Amino acid sequence: MKSFDDMVLHFLKDMYYAERAIQKALPELASAAQNDGFKKALLEHVEQTKENAQCLQEAFAALGKTAEAMTCEAMVGLMQEADDVIKGSGVGPVRDAALLACVQAIKHYVIARYSTLVAWLEAIGQKEAASLLQQCLEEEQVADARLNEVVRREINQSLVRG
Amino acid sequence: MKSFDDMVLHFLKDMYYAERAIQKALPELASAAQNDGFKKALLEHVEQTKENAQCLQEAFAALGKTAEAMTCEAMVGLMQEADDVIKGSGVGPVRDAALLACVQAIKHYVIARYSTLVAWLEAIGQKEAASLLQQCLEEEQVADARLNEVVRREINQSLVRG
Repeated sequence: MKSFDDMVLHFLKDMYYAERAIQKALPELASAAQNDGFKKALLEHVEQTKENAQCLQEAFAALGKTAEAMTCEAMVGLMQEADDVIKGSGVGPVRDAALLACVQAIKHYVIARYSTLVAWLEAIGQKEAASLLQQCLEEEQVADARLNEVVRREINQSLVRG
Repeated sequence: MKSFDDMVLHFLKDMYYAERAIQKALPELASAAQNDGFKKALLEHVEQTKENAQCLQEAFAALGKTAEAMTCEAMVGLMQEADDVIKGSGVGPVRDAALLACVQAIKHYVIARYSTLVAWLEAIGQKEAASLLQQCLEEEQVADARLNEVVRREINQSLVRG
């Protein structure tokens, strides 16, 4: 990572790994959840992660590079945390609330990274790649808001009732 | 993690680990950074992490528990990412920009977790503990805004100039 361009590429590879890891984990998270709205939101998000991976491939191409994934240690840790929650709890609203906190941490990480990458790509004059990742950023923000408004309220109500 | 109370305690232990890990890492991050404002912000944040750890101890006490740390896998991954940036780059604005992205990911994680814990502690009627963590949350938000406004602008200017 000597130049600004190297750094942008490093973080792009990181995100490409992250999106594919999320795509793989979502069905497992959905089957561990109890709340129907939460399960549905997780499964619906699989398509979004596929589209994001596609956008990332196009962003690599816009930079004249081939898409390549590089282990994103932060995402490995965030995923491990969700796995620990599943192993340490049974099906029900407590697990759902803990899993939701893990999923939101994953989404906030992804949102922060897309936001940084868009700013960096704009700074190095890579408008096409910036615009592709801006799409991912906006889709992630919409998905996060939906989780936060609908699913979180439902799960918290079950917790208080339970 | 059978009950809601168990879950809250689990995430509290996680945060106690995270704050102590951050406190330990900040001087290393500061010595790897070049930008003076960034170095200063990182070193000044050591005091804040000490205060947060103190608040967490008091929150444990308010719940009738002794403070205990439990490895927070997400924080391990987020720290590893910063370490990889340091190892993979030399002193200068490129490293500073990459490190800032890592530090902001750490802060966003911490902010999200305090926000969740405050909501959960309020839901189980633990007002004193909720109010202690609300203080941590607000301090972290102020520190994050400062990094975002001042340090990010300066580092980005150096990048574009360099």
